[in-house]
Amino acid sequence: MSVTAPNGFRAAGVSAGLKPDGARDVAVVVNDGPSRAAAAVFTRNRVKAAPVLWSQQVAKGGRVRAVVLNAGGANACTGAPGFQDAHATAEHAAAALEDSAGEVIVCSTGIIGERLPMPQLLDGVERAVAEAARDGGLSAADAIRTTDTVAKIAFKRGTGYTIGGMAKGAGMLAPALATMLAVITTDADLTPAQCDGLLRAATRVTFERVDSDGCMSTNDTVVLMASGASGTVPSEAEFAALLTEVCDDLARQLIADAEGATKTIAVEVVGAATEEDAVTAARAVARSNLFKCAIYGEDPNWGRAVSEVGTTSVAFDPAEINVALNGVWVCRRGAIGDDRAKVDLSGRDVTVTIDLSAGSAAATVWTTDLTNGYVEENSAYSS
Amino acid sequence: MSVTAPNGFRAAGVSAGLKPDGARDVAVVVNDGPSRAAAAVFTRNRVKAAPVLWSQQVAKGGRVRAVVLNAGGANACTGAPGFQDAHATAEHAAAALEDSAGEVIVCSTGIIGERLPMPQLLDGVERAVAEAARDGGLSAADAIRTTDTVAKIAFKRGTGYTIGGMAKGAGMLAPALATMLAVITTDADLTPAQCDGLLRAATRVTFERVDSDGCMSTNDTVVLMASGASGTVPSEAEFAALLTEVCDDLARQLIADAEGATKTIAVEVVGAATEEDAVTAARAVARSNLFKCAIYGEDPNWGRAVSEVGTTSVAFDPAEINVALNGVWVCRRGAIGDDRAKVDLSGRDVTVTIDLSAGSAAATVWTTDLTNGYVEENSAYSS
Repeated sequence: MSVTAPNGFRAAGVSAGLKPDGARDVAVVVNDGPSRAAAAVFTRNRVKAAPVLWSQQVAKGGRVRAVVLNAGGANACTGAPGFQDAHATAEHAAAALEDSAGEVIVCSTGIIGERLPMPQLLDGVERAVAEAARDGGLSAADAIRTTDTVAKIAFKRGTGYTIGGMAKGAGMLAPALATMLAVITTDADLTPAQCDGLLRAATRVTFERVDSDGCMSTNDTVVLMASGASGTVPSEAEFAALLTEVCDDLARQLIADAEGATKTIAVEVVGAATEEDAVTAARAVARSNLFKCAIYGEDPNWGRAVSEVGTTSVAFDPAEINVALNGVWVCRRGAIGDDRAKVDLSGRDVTVTIDLSAGSAAATVWTTDLTNGYVEENSAYSS
Repeated sequence: MSVTAPNGFRAAGVSAGLKPDGARDVAVVVNDGPSRAAAAVFTRNRVKAAPVLWSQQVAKGGRVRAVVLNAGGANACTGAPGFQDAHATAEHAAAALEDSAGEVIVCSTGIIGERLPMPQLLDGVERAVAEAARDGGLSAADAIRTTDTVAKIAFKRGTGYTIGGMAKGAGMLAPALATMLAVITTDADLTPAQCDGLLRAATRVTFERVDSDGCMSTNDTVVLMASGASGTVPSEAEFAALLTEVCDDLARQLIADAEGATKTIAVEVVGAATEEDAVTAARAVARSNLFKCAIYGEDPNWGRAVSEVGTTSVAFDPAEINVALNGVWVCRRGAIGDDRAKVDLSGRDVTVTIDLSAGSAAATVWTTDLTNGYVEENSAYSS
């Protein structure tokens, strides 16, 4: 199903020879309308890959005919020639669709600082457009995998419309290795402004709240395309809720498949003065190598969480903070609480709850443990 | 030599049973004067261990008779009872010295969130004070080790005076596991205000520029004590230079012994608009797990350095940044530069040079690679 669950979309994934093992590495998602309303959000990294620089211009128009994605190379830090490569990719897809390159978004993922093998890529784009079909959602999701062990797809039915999506990566607008890419489709009838507002609201509380290793990619892109093929103008509230569910579903799949992870960790901050404080404190803990190593070792070392909160500027009194690990309040009022031996960290899912005792706002950031597997994958990636 | 290289100081390290293996774990450094001028800098973590809360008050007086240090427990997140333990430790040392507890600094390192075994600790303090001697500098430096594989000591001769020091830990005011503790002694004759100014200036460009894993301890403490025993009032400029050398020497020893590290990495930022920008950019790269894993794998993946600089707000143009790895300019003007195959990362020492092309300020932050050894040590620490 994936991106082709809603009406009006075709997709395909093909092998163009960019991945050394001959696996699928080029995908397209084509919107056949009748509407082309769309929006996108991009990495906040100031070093933006060529396809991001290209696609930001496309997104400004609020209309997208197709998204072309490739694994096997990020096309980042490639200068003016790299930008020309991204442009040529869009032109090639547009020519195959007999349409305008100005409505083709390009996404790339892989190593930074290498040019893409353009003849292979363009050949792949041409074949992908030719093969794009209503049943192509899965092969497209497969083609954008890098270190992903499984393809990530999601869909939800609304009242008279459907939302579908695919994603790759293991992080967020602060993702792990390579990049977080997501394409979300719907056959609901939306304006470009609605797409933009709804997408920003949904990503803020989903993709932006997974953080596998604190590193921010040069290539992150999340695109929403609305074909209008259902003829349904949705209730904004219902659509917002469903879109958030689809994004949350995809984001959780990303973190569950993060590189080398053996634990999925929910860092839940409650009792915060503001939601921003809650996110800041949760993110600090989610990024602590010491805390993540402790969870890998199934060691209820709560001091490493408290210590991280202490490095932030969020409102809290060190003598009033409480911390629970999987429901056991091991730290009460900043000091030793219940017996840490009662904490069971043997399962895959771990929840650390941090009560700042400073208000009533809350937020959760999802992360993973730091493992030998992570070090292995990331020390051997490009060599 | 260590802290007893200058005249006027005695020291000792004894085993009090705080470390499971029976190794030395309690140290004292005693200043016999004639002067007791002193200053200290502490962690900026808002969650401060009990001994830090105690010692901050002592340091305000500008006079220190002795420093008591223990490994085997951080006495952090231990609430009011933990503060009473730190106070009792100071009182016990003061009684043995027939002096005031208000001039005794206490430092602790080890796991957070556990009370110290006070009877053993107090017995150890008593024995350490009794044993403190002019030749005790090495045993004191040995006693404060936690995961340190070697004791860290340094000394320098000035014109008519000496500076000595010892340290433990693998980081700094943003250190690794447990804590960075350092005691620096001199027989020069200085005022408390001079001690404070000189120590802050020296730590700013030394201990504060090593960053092994971005985690900030609850216990970091650097103390400078001046006995005046040489009778020499030093040239401030000469003393400042020598003190900075001693701090730099100790800081570099810490990073060279960082947990699990196989590489010592100098992240050198040049061409920055301001020194602050240079430090910010260097620290961002020094904290990147992806970059540190790449260096562990001897992979000249320079894109991971450029990408980290892009996450900061320092002045630079992504199209003008240059990056060298061990002298090979692999990134020129934000794009592909010299052949990355020319980079040799097989040695222990690695230098990444980042030219922001935005000014003439520079700074270097020292870090290490991220390795399986780091994950092993930190996933098994408290269990």
